[in-house]
Amino acid sequence: MKKHRITFLPNEVSVEVDEDTTIAAAAQRADVHINNLCGGQGVCGECRVLIRKGEATADEKASAFFSKEELEKGFVLACQTTIHDDLEVLIPPDSRIEEAQIMTGEGAEASGRSDFQPLVRKIYLELPSPTLEDNISDIERVSRALRKKLGWHSYEISLYCLQQLSDNLRDHDWKVTAAVVKDKKGYRIIRIEPLDTTARNFGIALDIGTTTIVAQLVDINSGKVIGVEGTHNLQAGFGEDVISRMIYACGKDGLHPLQEAVIKNINQLIEKLTQERKIPLDEINAIVAAGNTTMSHFLLGLTPCSIRLDPYVPTADVYPQILAKDIGIHINPNGILETIPSVASYVGGDIVAGVMACGIADHPEVRGLIDIGTNGEIAIGNNEWLVCCSASAGPAFEGGGTRCGMRAIKGAIEKVKISNGQLTYQTIGNAPPVGICGSGLIDCIYELVKNGIIGADGKFHRDLNDARLTYEDDVPQYIIAPPDETETGNAVVISEPDIDNLIKSKGAVFAAIKSLMDYIGLGFDKIETLYVAGGFGSFLDISKAVAIGLLPDIPLEKIEFIGNSSLTGARVCLLSETALERSLNISRSMTNIELTHHQPFMDEYVAALFLPHTDRKLFPSVSF
Amino acid sequence: MKKHRITFLPNEVSVEVDEDTTIAAAAQRADVHINNLCGGQGVCGECRVLIRKGEATADEKASAFFSKEELEKGFVLACQTTIHDDLEVLIPPDSRIEEAQIMTGEGAEASGRSDFQPLVRKIYLELPSPTLEDNISDIERVSRALRKKLGWHSYEISLYCLQQLSDNLRDHDWKVTAAVVKDKKGYRIIRIEPLDTTARNFGIALDIGTTTIVAQLVDINSGKVIGVEGTHNLQAGFGEDVISRMIYACGKDGLHPLQEAVIKNINQLIEKLTQERKIPLDEINAIVAAGNTTMSHFLLGLTPCSIRLDPYVPTADVYPQILAKDIGIHINPNGILETIPSVASYVGGDIVAGVMACGIADHPEVRGLIDIGTNGEIAIGNNEWLVCCSASAGPAFEGGGTRCGMRAIKGAIEKVKISNGQLTYQTIGNAPPVGICGSGLIDCIYELVKNGIIGADGKFHRDLNDARLTYEDDVPQYIIAPPDETETGNAVVISEPDIDNLIKSKGAVFAAIKSLMDYIGLGFDKIETLYVAGGFGSFLDISKAVAIGLLPDIPLEKIEFIGNSSLTGARVCLLSETALERSLNISRSMTNIELTHHQPFMDEYVAALFLPHTDRKLFPSVSF
Repeated sequence: MKKHRITFLPNEVSVEVDEDTTIAAAAQRADVHINNLCGGQGVCGECRVLIRKGEATADEKASAFFSKEELEKGFVLACQTTIHDDLEVLIPPDSRIEEAQIMTGEGAEASGRSDFQPLVRKIYLELPSPTLEDNISDIERVSRALRKKLGWHSYEISLYCLQQLSDNLRDHDWKVTAAVVKDKKGYRIIRIEPLDTTARNFGIALDIGTTTIVAQLVDINSGKVIGVEGTHNLQAGFGEDVISRMIYACGKDGLHPLQEAVIKNINQLIEKLTQERKIPLDEINAIVAAGNTTMSHFLLGLTPCSIRLDPYVPTADVYPQILAKDIGIHINPNGILETIPSVASYVGGDIVAGVMACGIADHPEVRGLIDIGTNGEIAIGNNEWLVCCSASAGPAFEGGGTRCGMRAIKGAIEKVKISNGQLTYQTIGNAPPVGICGSGLIDCIYELVKNGIIGADGKFHRDLNDARLTYEDDVPQYIIAPPDETETGNAVVISEPDIDNLIKSKGAVFAAIKSLMDYIGLGFDKIETLYVAGGFGSFLDISKAVAIGLLPDIPLEKIEFIGNSSLTGARVCLLSETALERSLNISRSMTNIELTHHQPFMDEYVAALFLPHTDRKLFPSVSF
Repeated sequence: MKKHRITFLPNEVSVEVDEDTTIAAAAQRADVHINNLCGGQGVCGECRVLIRKGEATADEKASAFFSKEELEKGFVLACQTTIHDDLEVLIPPDSRIEEAQIMTGEGAEASGRSDFQPLVRKIYLELPSPTLEDNISDIERVSRALRKKLGWHSYEISLYCLQQLSDNLRDHDWKVTAAVVKDKKGYRIIRIEPLDTTARNFGIALDIGTTTIVAQLVDINSGKVIGVEGTHNLQAGFGEDVISRMIYACGKDGLHPLQEAVIKNINQLIEKLTQERKIPLDEINAIVAAGNTTMSHFLLGLTPCSIRLDPYVPTADVYPQILAKDIGIHINPNGILETIPSVASYVGGDIVAGVMACGIADHPEVRGLIDIGTNGEIAIGNNEWLVCCSASAGPAFEGGGTRCGMRAIKGAIEKVKISNGQLTYQTIGNAPPVGICGSGLIDCIYELVKNGIIGADGKFHRDLNDARLTYEDDVPQYIIAPPDETETGNAVVISEPDIDNLIKSKGAVFAAIKSLMDYIGLGFDKIETLYVAGGFGSFLDISKAVAIGLLPDIPLEKIEFIGNSSLTGARVCLLSETALERSLNISRSMTNIELTHHQPFMDEYVAALFLPHTDRKLFPSVSF
C-alpha cells in the first residue's frame, strides 16, 4: 500500500502512514495529541487542523465547522480527513493537547526585552596581563573589567570561586567568563570559567504547587524555554492537602521528610530535563522557585507550624538567596536559588509570580488575577495599588473532594458536552476515562444546569427521565462515563454532594472576588483584563466558568486563561534581575485582606451558593 | 622561719616566702618575671618595683637609681630588697617581662568609645506576640524590632538561622537575642538565641605573622582583652621565610598543607584561650585576622604563586567575609571571619591594621608607622593622604640570618650593655642564653660601635685588645655569652658577617623611610609621631635603634614602640564595624611605592650601609 509522510507542526514530529489513514489516526501514531471530544465522529469540531503543505481529502460535512476564509486557508477536521499525499499539518493551539497536561506556563511572555539582565549573567572578559605599572590584584582586575561592562558596582566573590581565580586566569591567558548574580544588596561573582563560555548559561524556573511541581529548563541567553517537565508532589504521601502536611511537619521530626520529598521531586525534574538534552548539571547556574507560602517553607526547611494557626504567621515572607546545594539541589555548586517572596501565610510567592507574569503592577489599568488551586488566590490592582486575598476553595477544582474527581492527568475527563440529550466527553491523552479533572467538572455543572438536569441550587430534578441519572444509597448521581467505557470498569459519575462541593468552591472564589472589589469600591466593569490561572487542565472553557458563577460576568474577551502563571512569573524573575526586585516590591506593596474574619465575605459566600448566583443581576449574560 | 605573703600587681599573683627573701627571688618563685639585666647584682637598675602595701628593707646603694619622689613613693630594686612583711608589689611596665615574649599588642587602645558598634552585636528583643492585626512574618517581626534599635537597615538572615527562628521565638515567649553582623553591603542576622544572652559575646583578634601567630580573646561587650596566646607558625615546617613557603605552596598540592598548618595554629590558640576560661567555643561569634598578603592568602586557601613573581600580583587584596567554619576554624558555626584588606603583594593587612591601631588616618598631623618583620613595612600619612612601601629587611631582626640569632622566645638575649669594658645581658625568662633576638642584636651593634669595638663600617678593629674578640676560620666574632653561661655550652657570638647582615637590614629599612619621605617631599622633622612595631622582643631601646641608623634621628619622644600593632588593629576592627570599613578605605587610599625598581631607594640603601649613616648630618644626635 502507498505510504505518505505526515509532519505535524509546530513540533515537527513526522510519521509515515498508509494511504487513506485519517490525519487524526496519523497523529495518534505519531504520539501527537489532538483534541478529540466526540471520539472521531466529526460532530464536536474540536480537532481542527491546518494543512500547510500537500493535498488532503476532507469530508464534505466537516466544512460546517469552518468559515469560508478558514476553508480557503486549508482548515480541516483531523478525524474527517484522509491522507493521499505527504502533508505538513499545523495543529493550532486550541486543538493541541500537550503531552504533559500539567500546566506548563506558556502564558505571558517575558523574553526579548531590550533591558536584558538575567539573574545570572555571564560576561566574557579578555583581561590585560598585569604589569609592574598595573599590578592590582586578580579579583580587582576582574572587578574592574566587570565595572566597564556592567556598571560601577562592587563585586563580591565567594571564597570557593576566589580560591580558583588565580589558576583560572593564568592557565587561560587572562581570558575567562565570569558568572555574576544579583542578590538583594549587590552583585556577586559566583563562577569564573576558562575562556568564553557565555553561550552556555541555563536556569530552572520552578512552580512548586501543593499537587504538582513543574520545572522549566530555560536558556538564559535567549530567554527560551527549552524543556518542561511536571510531576506530582511527593509530599502527597504525607497528606493530600496543605493542612494535613503541615500537621505532619509539625509532629516530631516531621519537617525534614517533607523538605526531602520536594527536593527529590526537583532533582528528578532537573535530571530529566538535562539528561535528555545532554546539558551538564554544572551549566545550570540559577533556580527561581515560586510556591505558596507553605510550599516555600517546606522547600527551604522552614517550619510552617505557625502558618496554620491563628494569627497565621509565617517564619518568613522574604526568603534569602541561597546556594541551591545548601538544600540538596544538584546544579552547579555555586548556583543559586531564589524563592519568590510571599505576601502572607495564605498569599504566596505563586500569586506574586502570577502578578509579575501578568504585568498587573506595570499599567494604570485595573487588572486582576485569579489563581485557582486548593486555595483560590486573587490579586487586583494596577501600577499604583495592589490588593489580594485568598479563599479556601477546597480541592474540588484540582480534582479532590468529589467522588470521581482527579488531577489533570492521563485519563481525566477534561471536557464534557451535552447536546440534544447526547453526552460526549474528552479525556486527557484520549485514554479510557478514570475520573474528572477541574475543567471537566466545570463543564459538567454547566451542561447539567444548562440542560435542566439540575436546578440553580445544584439539586437534580428528581422527576427527570434520564437513564444517566441513578441513585446510590438514595444519593442521586449522573453518569458521565458508563462502566464499559472506563479504565476501571466503574462508572465515572458526578453526584449531588459533588455538585454541592463544587458550588461551595466556586462560591468561595466568586465571593472572594466580589468582596475584594467591594472592599476597594470598584465594580467588575472597571476590570480591564481578568487573568485566570490554575490547574484545571490545559483547557478551561471561560464561558462555562462564568456561567456557573465561578468567574464574574464580564465580557469574555476581557478574561484570559493563562495556565500556570506562577511558573511564568518564576521564569520572568530568572530572566530579569529587575523583575526579581519588583517581585519584592509587589509582595511588600500588596495589601492582603484576611477574608476569614470579614463579614461581607461570609454574606457574599452564602449568596454565591447558587448557579450562577442568588442575585441574577450579577450575571446578565447567563441565559439558563 | 617566718613566712610572708607577697602579692605581685598588676596580675595579683601571690606567693608565700621565707623572711629575708629578696623580692626578685619571690617573683621568680611566683613565676612573675621582672627585668634582670645584671643578674641580681644591683647594678643595672632594671628591676624597679613599687611597694604598694607593707614595709620592706631596701639596700641603701640601690637608692642611686631613683629620684627623691620615686623613693618617697616606695620604689625599690627588687633584687636589692628583702622581705620582712606581707607585701603588695607593683611591677611597673618597664620592669615587666610578659610570660609570652611574643608581642601581644597592648599598644594603642580602642575600647571605651561612645559609638560602640562591634562587628558582631547582640541585641536583646522582647517582641510582641503576633495578633490578627499584626501578623507579619517572624523574620519581619525580628527585623522591625532591630530597626528600632539599630536603625533602618534591611537585615538579611542565613538560611540556617531562619530554620531555627520559629521555634526559638515561640519556645521562649518571644524573648530572644539576635546576633547581628555587618558585612560589606549591610547587616546580617547570624544567630537568634533564646532569652537574653547579650552578656556573653566573644571574639578573637588574630595576628598571623610569618614567624608567630598571636590570638587575643576579646570580650566584645567591654572591649577588654581577656586573654592572649601566641605560638610559632607551624608553616615554618614548610620553610622559614615567606618565599620558601610560597615555593612549597606552588608545588603540586602544596597549598593545602600550608593552609592546614595555620588553621591548626588558630584552633589550638582558641582552644587554649577558651578552655582556661571555661568559655564555650559556641560563644565566639567573630574573628578578625590581620596578616601580610601571603599569610592572608594561606589563611583563606588562596594561591600565593603570583605574589612572588614580577609583577607581584596577589589573588585578592580585599577578602570576603566568610564563615569561620568554612575554612575549618572551630567557633560558633555561624561565626564569621574577616581578614583585614591588603594594599599590595608586599604591603599586607598587618600594616593596614597597624595604621588603624595608630590612628594615622584620623588626624591632620603627619604620622608614620614602621613595622619591622622579615619585611619592613612603612606607612606615612594623615587624614588626607597615605603612602606606604615595603623593603625586604631580611630576617635579621627576627633572629634569622645571623649566626646566633633567634626568635624572641625563652633564652634569647634581649638586652646587652657594655659599660667600662663589662658586658652584661638579659635573657627572656631569665633562662641561660640560647641566642640573640632582634632587640639584643640592636643593642649589640650599638654597644660595639659605641665602645669602639667596631667601626662605622661594622668591621671589628683588628688591633683591639679584648678577650671577647675571637676568630673562627679568620672570621672575627665577639662573644656575648661564653660557653659556660649558655644553655647549649656553645658561646653566643655576633660575627662580622652578622653585623654586615644587620647593617643591610637596618640600611634597607632606613632607606625605605628616607626614600618614602623624599618621594612625598617631607623632611623627618614633619613627622609628628613615628610608631615602631615589630617582633624584636618586648623591649626595643629606641635610642639605640636610632643611633645605629635603623630609625631616623628625630626627638625620642616622637618615637613610640607599640609592639604588635597588627594585633591591635585586628582588635579595633573586631570592636568597631566602622573601623573595619575604614580599614577598607585605608587599604584603598594608600599609595604603594614599589621600591624594588626605584633608583633613589637603591642610592639611599647604599648610603645607609654605615653606622649610623654615610651622611652624618642625618643623625646629628648620635655622638659616636
